[in-house]
Amino acid sequence: MTARVLIVDDIAANVRLLQAKLEAEYYETLTAPNGRIAIEMAIEDQPDIILLDVMMPEIDGYEVCRQLKEHAETRHIPIILITALDGREDRLSGLEAGADDFLTKPVDDVVLMARLRALVRLKQMVDDLRARESSSRRAGLTDQAVYDRQISATGNVLILDDNARQAERLMMQLGEDHRCAYETDPEKALKIAAGRVDLVVLNLTAKAFDALRWVAHLRTHEATRQRPVLAIINADERKVMLKALELGVNDVVPRPVDMLELRARARTQIKRKRYGDFLRNTLDRSLELAITDPLTHLNNRRFLDHHLNLAMARHNRGAAEDVVSVLMLDIDHFKRVNDTYGHDAGDEVIREFARRLSLNVRAIDMPCRFGGEEFVVLMPGTDQADALHIAERVRSQVADTPFALADGHLLDVTVSVGVATSRGVGDSPESLLKRADEGVYEAKQSGRNRVIVRAAA
Amino acid sequence: MTARVLIVDDIAANVRLLQAKLEAEYYETLTAPNGRIAIEMAIEDQPDIILLDVMMPEIDGYEVCRQLKEHAETRHIPIILITALDGREDRLSGLEAGADDFLTKPVDDVVLMARLRALVRLKQMVDDLRARESSSRRAGLTDQAVYDRQISATGNVLILDDNARQAERLMMQLGEDHRCAYETDPEKALKIAAGRVDLVVLNLTAKAFDALRWVAHLRTHEATRQRPVLAIINADERKVMLKALELGVNDVVPRPVDMLELRARARTQIKRKRYGDFLRNTLDRSLELAITDPLTHLNNRRFLDHHLNLAMARHNRGAAEDVVSVLMLDIDHFKRVNDTYGHDAGDEVIREFARRLSLNVRAIDMPCRFGGEEFVVLMPGTDQADALHIAERVRSQVADTPFALADGHLLDVTVSVGVATSRGVGDSPESLLKRADEGVYEAKQSGRNRVIVRAAA
Repeated sequence: MTARVLIVDDIAANVRLLQAKLEAEYYETLTAPNGRIAIEMAIEDQPDIILLDVMMPEIDGYEVCRQLKEHAETRHIPIILITALDGREDRLSGLEAGADDFLTKPVDDVVLMARLRALVRLKQMVDDLRARESSSRRAGLTDQAVYDRQISATGNVLILDDNARQAERLMMQLGEDHRCAYETDPEKALKIAAGRVDLVVLNLTAKAFDALRWVAHLRTHEATRQRPVLAIINADERKVMLKALELGVNDVVPRPVDMLELRARARTQIKRKRYGDFLRNTLDRSLELAITDPLTHLNNRRFLDHHLNLAMARHNRGAAEDVVSVLMLDIDHFKRVNDTYGHDAGDEVIREFARRLSLNVRAIDMPCRFGGEEFVVLMPGTDQADALHIAERVRSQVADTPFALADGHLLDVTVSVGVATSRGVGDSPESLLKRADEGVYEAKQSGRNRVIVRAAA
Repeated sequence: MTARVLIVDDIAANVRLLQAKLEAEYYETLTAPNGRIAIEMAIEDQPDIILLDVMMPEIDGYEVCRQLKEHAETRHIPIILITALDGREDRLSGLEAGADDFLTKPVDDVVLMARLRALVRLKQMVDDLRARESSSRRAGLTDQAVYDRQISATGNVLILDDNARQAERLMMQLGEDHRCAYETDPEKALKIAAGRVDLVVLNLTAKAFDALRWVAHLRTHEATRQRPVLAIINADERKVMLKALELGVNDVVPRPVDMLELRARARTQIKRKRYGDFLRNTLDRSLELAITDPLTHLNNRRFLDHHLNLAMARHNRGAAEDVVSVLMLDIDHFKRVNDTYGHDAGDEVIREFARRLSLNVRAIDMPCRFGGEEFVVLMPGTDQADALHIAERVRSQVADTPFALADGHLLDVTVSVGVATSRGVGDSPESLLKRADEGVYEAKQSGRNRVIVRAAA
């Protein structure tokens, strides 16, 4: 575990001392003598961590921190503020400015290294997500509005403490910023943490259970591995703190707990969690988009091809219940809509048709937009009689009520439907679709607005 | 850093000893008394790491290893083989069976923990990728054939050694399985490693440079962070080995190097690297698919919307060079093709049209399938005259040569094209597209196979 660390301090001797310590542990270092240069270097060189002195002339550490956290290119870089001051006010100012951690001089080397390791671990995970998200962004799949909404949202905090009274006190304080719940039973807390929890506040001094082991459990299971943990420790138990950081606790606050500091640290953790969630959601949404038709939000032909192949492969293994039916649907005289009312109207008709189609198939059916004004419904485990029934329902739900356009026009829309059902072992996806397509053709020839079944030969 | 470890051994005392050691370090443990149960548990419980004894009745450790590495649900789980034997043959058998590492009894606790930490780190990274890839798989975006091809491919190996003669000897051996190159200069090696390298074989006993610091550099930079490193160490330098593992070296072989063992360990590393690459590629390809039309491989409407919005936003900031043109193209009488020759023929026409369109626009143009038989070309920085010129070229390239269908039919295809150019500040993407669409309508009305420009008002 190693990283590139940017050291920012106006006193050259301090810089050299930190540099020597970090390089002895094989960290790579960059240095900046003031805030302005630090910001430039952070943008340009993209360090993994920034060690930032608070007391500097011109721009102080708080302001540098604030600016780095505002800039899109640097806000993901963890910042550790280092200062000679040990005042509560200063710690709070640092956290409010967006610092991820806070160490006081003289810096305890072991603690510094433990903190560094923990932050680097998180940073590398986020880097990998960011790399993928940047492809999404180039493709226009990243939604800045969603980002802003998610980052600033209220968090769900779970407090785990064997002392119910203290838990309630914590809850009252954290409740000013977040939705909170507390639990005194570690087993129950593990289950809750697997749900929509943004932060666990854990009393590491609990006597009723082994809190370190609880962290290990949390980190072991995939459902809770990424859950941030803010631990409350006894200030003098340095060994416990180091073990906690090693096991993956994200941050610690010493007892007696300064409530404002706790709230500030909780906010930082939740914000970081939200950023990771946002990156993951963007990826998942992008994957979803690959199989979604943008106009109708139905699945697209790519999705259909895949699932039709799977269904026919099952069918060809020969189980009687693995019969497959498909409907092919083609909106009648769609060209006329486009030519008479324009493309926007055409899009409205497609969308409304897709809506009615979705409402009138069953949960197991897969309605897809095949292209243009053509749709296919894949119906696994469905025989001809059931498929016909549903086709007829869709047809009538389209024909019976005119489509209302945004400009007030009412359009009579009808659809021609072909139904085909698998013929037993040896049948192919292509042949099944072709038969449904022939059904559509026949429906059009014989006057449209009807369902034609291509009988299983 | 913690994990769930499955301990497999037929001797209960061994199991209890390992269990106690691991739990003292906050690992979670599962145990299996024989190979059959171990395989079942690995599938069912999905541990993070498997510690596997070699000498067991019925199925021995090698066979268990082989089966676990063949099974799709377990092949990503790292396996450490543990045995009383110290024979070279046994080590090779274990590696050939697919083991990720190999420890001999009595197990050195510190080495065990260092190995565990290194493997857990890799495993968690892969888990995150696998989670995303499983969405791709459900959507049918994962290609098993690509997987098989990538996993079994020959690797690119870079050897870094200050001793050219030894490097050449290593190269000769590894060259039997892979493409190899060696380098004696660490700076040059860093640059090469950023390229298409699947494995770095590093002489950690090099005197001419600090090999541990070289590993730190490699791990620090994003381009090389994930590059596997197999280090050659002096067997008696335990401290160096531990530091190397901590810094992210993936595996070590002691000197004097057993060449067969080196080759086996190299194969394991390359296979694992390929698996990670495959997961990443699948993700990137899936993201690409979200903006690609499946039939024509042109970009889709989602892509168009995003880039048209960007281009018009730039345009509306007022720079004269940020003029934007679009072509809208609609294949004439396409319905007739479908009705006369069937959908497959229709698809062929769409594909061939897309091909000619792509060939006749410029590199900066973005040709997209808008839906059905409609296409849009977005032309940033392009005025009306240039847009018209290209539209005319596309129209004639479509009309002048008939489309040859797979069944031998020759079809005369024509296209109607509308051209619109941005009107200056205040113009909108919607209005621009609408004007191009009006151009298409006018082209159709006045006889098709022509280009109509909607003049900037």
